[in-house]
Amino acid sequence: MVSHSIAMLEILLFLLLIGKSSETSSMEHVRKLLPVLTTSLRKGSCGKIAVIGGSVEYTGAPYFAAISALKLGADLVYVMCAPEAAPVIKSFSPELIVYPGLDPDAVLPKLERVDAIVLGPGLGRSPHVAPLFDKVVDFVINKNLPMVMDADGLWFLNESISKGIKPLPSAILTPNMVEFSRLCESALGEKDVLKIKDQSKLEDLASRLSTRLGTSLFVKGKVDIITNPDGKVTVGQDEGSPRRCGGQGDVSSGTLAMFLLWATRQSSAEEAKNAAGLACSELVRRLAKTTYGKMGRSMITTDMINELPALLREVDGK
Amino acid sequence: MVSHSIAMLEILLFLLLIGKSSETSSMEHVRKLLPVLTTSLRKGSCGKIAVIGGSVEYTGAPYFAAISALKLGADLVYVMCAPEAAPVIKSFSPELIVYPGLDPDAVLPKLERVDAIVLGPGLGRSPHVAPLFDKVVDFVINKNLPMVMDADGLWFLNESISKGIKPLPSAILTPNMVEFSRLCESALGEKDVLKIKDQSKLEDLASRLSTRLGTSLFVKGKVDIITNPDGKVTVGQDEGSPRRCGGQGDVSSGTLAMFLLWATRQSSAEEAKNAAGLACSELVRRLAKTTYGKMGRSMITTDMINELPALLREVDGK
Repeated sequence: MVSHSIAMLEILLFLLLIGKSSETSSMEHVRKLLPVLTTSLRKGSCGKIAVIGGSVEYTGAPYFAAISALKLGADLVYVMCAPEAAPVIKSFSPELIVYPGLDPDAVLPKLERVDAIVLGPGLGRSPHVAPLFDKVVDFVINKNLPMVMDADGLWFLNESISKGIKPLPSAILTPNMVEFSRLCESALGEKDVLKIKDQSKLEDLASRLSTRLGTSLFVKGKVDIITNPDGKVTVGQDEGSPRRCGGQGDVSSGTLAMFLLWATRQSSAEEAKNAAGLACSELVRRLAKTTYGKMGRSMITTDMINELPALLREVDGK
Repeated sequence: MVSHSIAMLEILLFLLLIGKSSETSSMEHVRKLLPVLTTSLRKGSCGKIAVIGGSVEYTGAPYFAAISALKLGADLVYVMCAPEAAPVIKSFSPELIVYPGLDPDAVLPKLERVDAIVLGPGLGRSPHVAPLFDKVVDFVINKNLPMVMDADGLWFLNESISKGIKPLPSAILTPNMVEFSRLCESALGEKDVLKIKDQSKLEDLASRLSTRLGTSLFVKGKVDIITNPDGKVTVGQDEGSPRRCGGQGDVSSGTLAMFLLWATRQSSAEEAKNAAGLACSELVRRLAKTTYGKMGRSMITTDMINELPALLREVDGK
C-alpha cells in the first residue's frame, strides 16, 4: 500500500517534470533572439526604442507597449505623445523617457537616435496627427528602420489606402481581427471578414493583403498569422489565455518591436520578420497563459507585465 | 506508523475539501452569471462598460467602480469624468480608458459603443452636470441599456422626483441607507426612515419605492434588499464585514453593472435584475468578509480589489 503510494507519487513527479521541460522547449524562437548579456555591453546596445502614441483619451496603450519593450530587454524607451498624455504616462513609470508633443518637427529629430519604432498605440485619430504619421512612415522607409505599426497607426494607414500607399520593407503591421477586416475591405474589397471561421481562408486573405500592401503582417487572432509580401504564411498557435482584456495588443506591439530589432541584426529582412513574429507569438501567448493560470478571470494586462521577468528567467534556464 | 500518517493525511485532505466546498457552494448566484471564457472570444465580448463619474473633488469613487468591473471580467472600461479628475484617475490604472469632460455632446456618442453604464460615482452635484444626467437617462431608456445608478446620480434623480421622473426598466438604483431615506421622503413622503430598525418595514418601504419610481432597487444595508417595480422583494444577507470605509459602495456598483449585463444576456429583464442583485450581494459581502479576515480593522477598499482575483478563482474551483 505504502510503496504503491510512493510509486504513484514518483510517477506524478515524473509527469510534472516532463510537462515542465516540454513547456520550456517550446520557447525556442524566443531564446534564439534574446541577446546574450555580457559586461562589455553599453547602455543602448540592446536597443533604444520609441513608442509614438498616447492622446488625451489614451495613456495606457503606449505605456503597455513601452514597458513591455523595456522589460523584454530594451535599454532606453522613449514615448512621444500628446502633451496632455505625457504627465500621466510619466507617472506610470519613472523608467520611461516621455516627450510631450506630436509636432513632426520636434519628433523627427528624436527618432534619429532610436533603433526601432512602435507607431500607433493610443495615438488617437485626430487629423492633427496625420502629418506626423506620414513623416514617420517616410523616415522609416528612408532609414530602413524596424517598425511595428498598430492600433490607430493602422487606422491612419487604412485611411491612406485609397490614395495609394508605399510598401514598408522594414515594418510589420499588427492588426487584430477588427483592424484586419477593415484593411481587407479597403485594400482587397473583401467584406464580412469578421464572420470567416475557416482558418485557411483567413491565412489566404492575410497573404493577399500583405502582398497588396507590400508590407509584412502579424494578424492577432485565435491563431497568429505571420505573412510577408512574398505571400508565405507562418502561424503561431501556442496555447494562450481566453481573457480578452484591453492592453494585450500593446504588449504584443512592444514585444514584437524588440524581437524585430534583434532579428534584423541576425538575418535578412524577410527571415527577420518571420523569426520575430514567431518569437512574439510564442512569448506573448505563453505569458498570457501563465498569467491567466495564476490570476484566473481577473487577469489584467498589468498582471502580464508583472509575470514577464519570471518567464524570461525560465527561458534563460535560471 | 507510515500508513497511519497516510491515513491522517487523507483525513486532513478530506476535511480541507469539505471545508472548501461548503464555502464555495454559497456562491451559486455568482457562478451562474460569470461568463465561460473560451479562446474564441474577442476583445469586448465579455463587456464594455462606461462609468460616468469623477469630479474636481472625487476621483476614487469612479476608479473603484471601474476597476471592480474590469477585475470581475469586463474587457474594456471607460470612465467619463470632469476634466480635472481625468489625469488622476488615469494615473490609478493604465488599464482604464478615461475621457476628460462631461459635456453631453462629447459623452453621448461614446456611450454608443458600451454594453452597460454606471452613472454617478463621484459625479458631484454641480448644476453643470444636470443636462448630462438627463441625457444619459434618456439614452438608457431609448437603448434599453443595463445601468446602475448610484451616489450623486441618485442625488440628481432625487432632485427630479418633484418634477416627475420616468421609469428605468433596464436600470437598478443602488442607494445606501442615507440615500434610501432621502428617496423615501421625496417619493413616498416617509420621514425618519434612518430610524427604522424593523427589517420587514424596510423591505416594505423598498418595495413601495421601487413601484413608485418604476425602477428596480438594490438597497445596501445590514441586509441588501433587491426589489422590482412589481413589488417582489429578495434579500442578500450573507455575512459581510463590519468595516464601513468609503469606496465599498463603488465596488458594488461596478460589480452589479457587470452582473446585470451578463444576466440580461441570459434571461428576462425582471429575472435578470434579481439574479444580478443576488450575485452582487453574494460576491461583495464575501469579498468584504474575506478581506476583513485578512486585514482586520485597517481594511480599505483597495484591499478588497486586491482580494478579488483569489475569490473568483475559488468560485471557479481553480
